[in-house]
Amino acid sequence: MASKKKNIYVNGINQVPVPMRQIEIVERKGIGHPDSVADGVAETVSEALCAMYKKEVGHVLHHNTDQTEVVAGISAPKFGGGKIIKPVYILMDGRATTYIEKGKEKISLPVEPTALDGVRKYLKKMYPHLNVDTDVILDTKLGMGSDDLTGVYKASNYLSNDTSFGVGFAPFSITDTLTKETEQYINGDMKKKIPAAGQDVKVMCSRVGKNITMTVCCAMVDKYIDDKEAYKSTMEEMHKYVLENGNKIIDREGSDVRLKLDLNTGDDYKRGVYYLTVTGLSQEMGDDGSVGRGNRCNGLITPFRPMSMEATSGKNPITHVGKIYNVLSNIIANDVAKKVKADAEIHVRLLSQIGHTISDPLNANIDIITPNAADDARLPKWKDEAYSIAADWLDNIDKVSEKIIAGKIKTF
Amino acid sequence: MASKKKNIYVNGINQVPVPMRQIEIVERKGIGHPDSVADGVAETVSEALCAMYKKEVGHVLHHNTDQTEVVAGISAPKFGGGKIIKPVYILMDGRATTYIEKGKEKISLPVEPTALDGVRKYLKKMYPHLNVDTDVILDTKLGMGSDDLTGVYKASNYLSNDTSFGVGFAPFSITDTLTKETEQYINGDMKKKIPAAGQDVKVMCSRVGKNITMTVCCAMVDKYIDDKEAYKSTMEEMHKYVLENGNKIIDREGSDVRLKLDLNTGDDYKRGVYYLTVTGLSQEMGDDGSVGRGNRCNGLITPFRPMSMEATSGKNPITHVGKIYNVLSNIIANDVAKKVKADAEIHVRLLSQIGHTISDPLNANIDIITPNAADDARLPKWKDEAYSIAADWLDNIDKVSEKIIAGKIKTF
Amino acid sequence: MASKKKNIYVNGINQVPVPMRQIEIVERKGIGHPDSVADGVAETVSEALCAMYKKEVGHVLHHNTDQTEVVAGISAPKFGGGKIIKPVYILMDGRATTYIEKGKEKISLPVEPTALDGVRKYLKKMYPHLNVDTDVILDTKLGMGSDDLTGVYKASNYLSNDTSFGVGFAPFSITDTLTKETEQYINGDMKKKIPAAGQDVKVMCSRVGKNITMTVCCAMVDKYIDDKEAYKSTMEEMHKYVLENGNKIIDREGSDVRLKLDLNTGDDYKRGVYYLTVTGLSQEMGDDGSVGRGNRCNGLITPFRPMSMEATSGKNPITHVGKIYNVLSNIIANDVAKKVKADAEIHVRLLSQIGHTISDPLNANIDIITPNAADDARLPKWKDEAYSIAADWLDNIDKVSEKIIAGKIKTF
Amino acid sequence: MASKKKNIYVNGINQVPVPMRQIEIVERKGIGHPDSVADGVAETVSEALCAMYKKEVGHVLHHNTDQTEVVAGISAPKFGGGKIIKPVYILMDGRATTYIEKGKEKISLPVEPTALDGVRKYLKKMYPHLNVDTDVILDTKLGMGSDDLTGVYKASNYLSNDTSFGVGFAPFSITDTLTKETEQYINGDMKKKIPAAGQDVKVMCSRVGKNITMTVCCAMVDKYIDDKEAYKSTMEEMHKYVLENGNKIIDREGSDVRLKLDLNTGDDYKRGVYYLTVTGLSQEMGDDGSVGRGNRCNGLITPFRPMSMEATSGKNPITHVGKIYNVLSNIIANDVAKKVKADAEIHVRLLSQIGHTISDPLNANIDIITPNAADDARLPKWKDEAYSIAADWLDNIDKVSEKIIAGKIKTF
Repeated sequence: MASKKKNIYVNGINQVPVPMRQIEIVERKGIGHPDSVADGVAETVSEALCAMYKKEVGHVLHHNTDQTEVVAGISAPKFGGGKIIKPVYILMDGRATTYIEKGKEKISLPVEPTALDGVRKYLKKMYPHLNVDTDVILDTKLGMGSDDLTGVYKASNYLSNDTSFGVGFAPFSITDTLTKETEQYINGDMKKKIPAAGQDVKVMCSRVGKNITMTVCCAMVDKYIDDKEAYKSTMEEMHKYVLENGNKIIDREGSDVRLKLDLNTGDDYKRGVYYLTVTGLSQEMGDDGSVGRGNRCNGLITPFRPMSMEATSGKNPITHVGKIYNVLSNIIANDVAKKVKADAEIHVRLLSQIGHTISDPLNANIDIITPNAADDARLPKWKDEAYSIAADWLDNIDKVSEKIIAGKIKTF
Repeated sequence: MASKKKNIYVNGINQVPVPMRQIEIVERKGIGHPDSVADGVAETVSEALCAMYKKEVGHVLHHNTDQTEVVAGISAPKFGGGKIIKPVYILMDGRATTYIEKGKEKISLPVEPTALDGVRKYLKKMYPHLNVDTDVILDTKLGMGSDDLTGVYKASNYLSNDTSFGVGFAPFSITDTLTKETEQYINGDMKKKIPAAGQDVKVMCSRVGKNITMTVCCAMVDKYIDDKEAYKSTMEEMHKYVLENGNKIIDREGSDVRLKLDLNTGDDYKRGVYYLTVTGLSQEMGDDGSVGRGNRCNGLITPFRPMSMEATSGKNPITHVGKIYNVLSNIIANDVAKKVKADAEIHVRLLSQIGHTISDPLNANIDIITPNAADDARLPKWKDEAYSIAADWLDNIDKVSEKIIAGKIKTF
Repeated sequence: MASKKKNIYVNGINQVPVPMRQIEIVERKGIGHPDSVADGVAETVSEALCAMYKKEVGHVLHHNTDQTEVVAGISAPKFGGGKIIKPVYILMDGRATTYIEKGKEKISLPVEPTALDGVRKYLKKMYPHLNVDTDVILDTKLGMGSDDLTGVYKASNYLSNDTSFGVGFAPFSITDTLTKETEQYINGDMKKKIPAAGQDVKVMCSRVGKNITMTVCCAMVDKYIDDKEAYKSTMEEMHKYVLENGNKIIDREGSDVRLKLDLNTGDDYKRGVYYLTVTGLSQEMGDDGSVGRGNRCNGLITPFRPMSMEATSGKNPITHVGKIYNVLSNIIANDVAKKVKADAEIHVRLLSQIGHTISDPLNANIDIITPNAADDARLPKWKDEAYSIAADWLDNIDKVSEKIIAGKIKTF
Repeated sequence: MASKKKNIYVNGINQVPVPMRQIEIVERKGIGHPDSVADGVAETVSEALCAMYKKEVGHVLHHNTDQTEVVAGISAPKFGGGKIIKPVYILMDGRATTYIEKGKEKISLPVEPTALDGVRKYLKKMYPHLNVDTDVILDTKLGMGSDDLTGVYKASNYLSNDTSFGVGFAPFSITDTLTKETEQYINGDMKKKIPAAGQDVKVMCSRVGKNITMTVCCAMVDKYIDDKEAYKSTMEEMHKYVLENGNKIIDREGSDVRLKLDLNTGDDYKRGVYYLTVTGLSQEMGDDGSVGRGNRCNGLITPFRPMSMEATSGKNPITHVGKIYNVLSNIIANDVAKKVKADAEIHVRLLSQIGHTISDPLNANIDIITPNAADDARLPKWKDEAYSIAADWLDNIDKVSEKIIAGKIKTF
């Protein structure tokens, strides 16, 4: 039970849930998209700093490292295997506590070496075709935060450091599921069959009625493809696998949508245009990336659903509501969705105010959406349940931080 | 009239428009917020390059410079006037065409000098308290784009260079209007009365029923404030002005909402915490900024409305649908809103596919939202009108580009 | 009179002075050579910091900023006027005191803004064809020095901070004078007649007996030269002026050497190779520069004379013997040369040891060189005079610092 | 025999060789000194590029990478083992050929990845206490050279690309030998006995008559030293070893000089000042480094001998006379010294002129120095021998390039 009355507003909204409407668009940027690379680097910096702070001083100190910039390199891909000509430049910026004072003693903290160590390992593990030692320049500009914010931070770990909000929804539609799982399939099981498929994948699903057009853009790894014919046949093979996998998902979910797949539509065989790369990452030859511009923390970009602009990756998991509230909104939405009838759409929005406690938002809003939710006899019960779920989570918000620090939550 | 049948889907949706619901949250980051600084720099780079390309080769060439990173500096603000200790570092990255080939001749193009020239002038004009010569380091990493994208670009200026979407809505609610105009007031007319108010302003409005809580966070310029007492009285004065102005807007719009204002709630006079800065910009002492993470191109962040994740600022205004479709979505939404009854909420989403013509989206969706839109007798007429508006704009999409190049469209 | 016995060793050396030998080589890099640009920037940073420290805390604080790196840009020069394509990147690094502690108060000092301010003004003043706002990126990495050195520094301003030496000689030979003054002429009076002559000039004189071959390499400013013919005639005109000026110097000095001039021998008109630049500075298109690799503090590079490897530019003028001893060695050599017969060659070398007082070198050596100096009856008198000159200067070594801080000493 | 008459001038000079004079100063910066780190990095880049060019196109292409800048980091050393707080930043700049054109095909060359690969391996091998993955940021700005220089280069591999000179002398004095071998001992055999001795060693020998004062400054590695007492006893032990080794060298050379050793004179035990580091490299906490400011290519800095200002490390070993002539001058000096009587001092200076063939210098000067060399009956024979040695080497100058490319020549 919640410790005290909170500003939680639960409403039933008479509205056709998105999955039942005529049109829906959903996008996912794969783990190799430059924006996802930036997100992953930023989140890794935060995770590495959390671990270092805990080791050095016993608890997490102030930091917000949600600011990595990935500047594209230059490559010369070619069938059979090309070369990286100019490395990608990755600037890790953001704020971090570089020292503390214990009485008269000043204790310096190895912020940038810790970040470099964590990120180097992360990139090596995540991107096997990328030679981190020669094809990436890792630079750092991680300084100390402003007095004002650190002032709030020092006073208590439970005060909000910013006026910002988190947004989540549940459950996933078939379009959502197809989008997310297709990228996971291409970067997962399909790799054993088609190693030539690179990690920079973009999946965009457009549903019109029961017809889903899925556009997949996938950077191909040149060393696995000998020539134009091989490229063409690899595309055909990949088209088959991705479509098969998509249809399996549709069957599994009991959906009746029809799937059409457009793969690498930017190619133009006649003019000799192929989406060929050395590393399977478009950052190698032209695409820059930034934190917070790709997937939301549920792994998707959903213009038909509410979204937050806050970057989740790289933010401090203890004090930054922009991170905690985004993660928590999705958790609450899913928990509420399970309690309410299956076809209801749940929206959650949590709004903080700087200087106030994190466990007590300025405004927590839960919308239960069905064509006649406002008039549904079960609404009072749903409201009570939703209130309890939200209040309980807010009272136990430290668990969200702990999950994030433990690396159990994906942020993009 | 539209040239041919397009994939435009207009729907009436039975749904309570956001302004009529219990809860609404709207945010605006002011022109001095680090994310807005990044947006402004990126857009300025694109504008400067467009002008240079037109001068040098007669038309705009491929570029996407939506990638500026603002790395915070260090300052030592104090009552009466402090100092910048470490400059802000601004990295302008992204892709731009650095040369063209005319027969055997290679013509080099002054991309980085052009960007530096434009941005230096922009910063000087926009931020009068910022000494661009000493308190900012402007760095550039503007290289050439990838073959694949430039391949599409060269074929025709009218092919989409990416699979992405634009999103817009109209009309503004009273919460939207209050949020946007409050920032414009603080950074506009109020400056004459309170020059101490800095340009880094964040306005967050949370409406619960008829009660709007507006949280304003405003960096104060130290040289205009002599001491703690002056700070306190400036806050009181500013509180009065902003509230008065807000109530004027409410009256003008004929709304009956009630406004409560929380100003600089992070301050803690007892502990000596004030939001004091040398330049009125929090980038001077701790806040980094990125392109595309702040306001959408309508100037707001609206978690209760559909939004796009695409950065509008800095993108190529000729070929990048991520820019054109976002701008156009809002234009169409406004035009449709004017034709339909006043309290309808209009959502527009335009989805492109790489390799297809920009004037023919894969999917253009217009939702007309009222509590009973689907059943409204006027719906067929509304649909026709909306279709015509969208089709006309798509046929004349070059006008959108031209407006952007001419600097007539704000992107953040 | 000297305060106490110092380790000053004066010797008469039986040796033919360099000007009387068959072979002599002397070089001067002009003020626009990338190494000279680096020297000038580094020295300007030090001068600006000295002024700032005196203003903020009353006296000069520890710094050594002898570390600027000039990374070449890219230009597209052409007859009639070309363009800068990529800016020159100038990294100002080195060490500087960024804060002091006054009791419990920490006073931050604006090191990097001060450096940027000074260097921007310096570049604008020195290089009129360089657009500092668009064609140069000024970056800074000026951090705090090591504990060890600052430990020495804090103890007393009069302790040496390094084990290093300074070297000087006097008087100048006709080859020295011709080399130095030719560059000064090209970058001085000749500019009015030939504005096309750029500031990146390299003068190399090779004397064999009485024949001096002077090789001059001069970057030309493209906007003043319309075509190949104009280039050719400018070269002829410049050849005439430089030779005339050289012969005037020879006459003035009463020398009987013969001067031959080779101008821009890298040109190859048949193959269309001209030394054409936009700014008159080769840094714009290919030549990087570093501090301390160009002229010694007498303005020359003299492989037939003793030289120090220490960079003079940018070093702390109060505590860094690498700067003070180099400047002082030349002063002492000149003072001694005036007391001794005109054709004697004077060498001075001053060696410090870390932790010892600057006014008491580990080893001060003055060599008086004539074909029979060791046997000259006047040697005892010369020795006494030389000892007094050196001892007096060492006792008044603060005057050297003061002259440097006042900008009265050239360091390259 | 030489192919044609060259401008080689051999002279006998009546002069007391430096080893016989009263005063002599010699310095060596150890392999861990920041300037030596910069030299080593620059030379490694050139070596790596030579190998890459040979592999990719069959021969070495134009490059000059003599421009590395080492920007100091921040460390927190302490007895028993401290931490790196901020990484060292190493900028590799300079010019390199990034592509060639073969007919219509443009072949891109992996310049920066090659440099990163070579340097990373070099640093790991050379500096075992330095964690290259976390304590160093490697950045690159390696662009294409200017048209003028590349014009000369393309015409023939045997044209000089610059007007510059090389300087060498032989044989080494006892002071030279002691200086060089002491550093090699400390960074060689002594390491097994005293692993705490870091690689940043500076050896400065000042000889007055028969008394040599050797000042050694050595960064100590903190993890091997438990406390102040251990530091003190390590200093005493190291003092003993270095002195013993020095006296062994003196005995071996049959010299009668007396050696006094001053070790880490900047320490001040009372005030708690120790020369303690984490990595044994002072770059970790305050000392920046540049190419070409440390040892000449014979491994020494010798203010009593002729020296060149040219950086040898990193320059192109095929066309840059600044590199080849410096290396060759020392080779010729040593070969001549072996032919002439043992106590003669040999000076060699080679001067090129841009556009002329490298094997035919504008001016090659060999001075044979003894107290009465000009009058020695053997002078004509010495002159013939010296001429032949120099002429033969110039005719076979490619062998010098080959030795450098093969890594058989040390450049600092």
